[in-house]
Amino acid sequence: MGAVVFIGAGPGTADLITVRGARRLAEADVVLYDALTDPALRDLAPLAQWLHVGKRGFRDDSTGQQDINALLVHHAQHSKLVVRLKGGDPSMFGRLEEELEALAEAGIASEVIPGVTAALAAAAASKRPLTRRGDGRSLSMTTAMTRTGDMHATRTADTEVFYMAGKQLAALAARLIDAGWPEGTPVSVVSRAGWPDARHSDHTIATLPDASEQHAGRPAVVTVGAGARPLNASLTEANLTQVSSDEPLKSRVPPDGGTSSSPSIPSEP
Amino acid sequence: MGAVVFIGAGPGTADLITVRGARRLAEADVVLYDALTDPALRDLAPLAQWLHVGKRGFRDDSTGQQDINALLVHHAQHSKLVVRLKGGDPSMFGRLEEELEALAEAGIASEVIPGVTAALAAAAASKRPLTRRGDGRSLSMTTAMTRTGDMHATRTADTEVFYMAGKQLAALAARLIDAGWPEGTPVSVVSRAGWPDARHSDHTIATLPDASEQHAGRPAVVTVGAGARPLNASLTEANLTQVSSDEPLKSRVPPDGGTSSSPSIPSEP
Repeated sequence: MGAVVFIGAGPGTADLITVRGARRLAEADVVLYDALTDPALRDLAPLAQWLHVGKRGFRDDSTGQQDINALLVHHAQHSKLVVRLKGGDPSMFGRLEEELEALAEAGIASEVIPGVTAALAAAAASKRPLTRRGDGRSLSMTTAMTRTGDMHATRTADTEVFYMAGKQLAALAARLIDAGWPEGTPVSVVSRAGWPDARHSDHTIATLPDASEQHAGRPAVVTVGAGARPLNASLTEANLTQVSSDEPLKSRVPPDGGTSSSPSIPSEP
Repeated sequence: MGAVVFIGAGPGTADLITVRGARRLAEADVVLYDALTDPALRDLAPLAQWLHVGKRGFRDDSTGQQDINALLVHHAQHSKLVVRLKGGDPSMFGRLEEELEALAEAGIASEVIPGVTAALAAAAASKRPLTRRGDGRSLSMTTAMTRTGDMHATRTADTEVFYMAGKQLAALAARLIDAGWPEGTPVSVVSRAGWPDARHSDHTIATLPDASEQHAGRPAVVTVGAGARPLNASLTEANLTQVSSDEPLKSRVPPDGGTSSSPSIPSEP
């Protein structure tokens, strides 16, 4: 009887996995991986059997999940170490609960190695710290899309991060207004966070639908509120109540969608 | 003129840093680091100049922050690569905003490499996925303690994670009740998440003050709500309204504070 280690691969290129995750991955006999994982991760366990069990996007794929659970149990019973490689962090939006329960029911030992979740990689890529001194002390992370395909948004924290929202930005903007966010609230959109071709653009809720084209076909993280504010804005004591129109922010956005205002180091090779 | 790379070291032992972070750290001429970072990280950049600028806990140390900003600028002006090593993830509760702004004002290039934040390491150590199917779709992360030293708590998400709350668990429990959480709500406390001696205990809000002794003197993350629920509980369709007393959860906690109910793999050497 073997064991299963859940490893967060991080949200981008293979080097966003933790050192601990990389070392454990190298010991794997079998790796069950998702669609969004960087293929370069295979180099960390070239002799393992790699099985693609990926589900893309957000859908109620309960049969697929049961198949994955069964595969995990089966391979754990027939090999020494099974790695379940998940994009981002395994404890966030990853159906970890179901898989851990299936293993516990079968009496199979398991371990979870955390990873960088997409919100953190988006904040890093855009240089938009998720917490801000004074008015950015709480942070919410959620999926904007419900299981029935509807959009859902709230205003419960100083900064709200929406995962998997890229396909319905206009609907998300409408729900944010419904939830009480002023339409001049800063919004930061980062697609393919953690990858060399990560793309970042600044908006307000009113102009958020414009982001659809720039980020089309790319997994995107949408950050709303204090944590979306460009750094310079905080120097002028700007806050949400003072942003009465989208002009003060929009004026900072170059035609290509904008990048951080501070000088950047060329990205890693 | 050099550049500054902010690197999230993760919340525990040195191997929770990302591969990207480890590689960049190895290129550093100067490393400015905080108190909580694992000393073993020094082995990744043994020839660099390591400067301790750590601030422990939560206090309004604006002079200290200005000193750190000045040190960053000074060393960037006199060396090629300065690494600002931060515990956990740099974008979460790390004063990244102030330091990025100081560098931007001085015209110094910067880059941010994300890391594993403590909430994710706590979820991994306790096998408590932060998101749950159905009733655990939103997640909030915040510091419980305000700058004035008061405790603050809300009920805005299915799961709320409180950083730096370990010293005032009784006060946190009282604020959670005030915020409308039923006193039978599951609470998971993990101290020293990411370290080999991580300790996990299960409580309800009513019994949360009991956790103080078990986690005394250890940095702790407190998770409240759906994401704190043991896995088995979800198999029985338990939810917050059905947990009317602390008995169902308390009965699962062994005298040493409790661990996950599923079999565990011995921790990494």
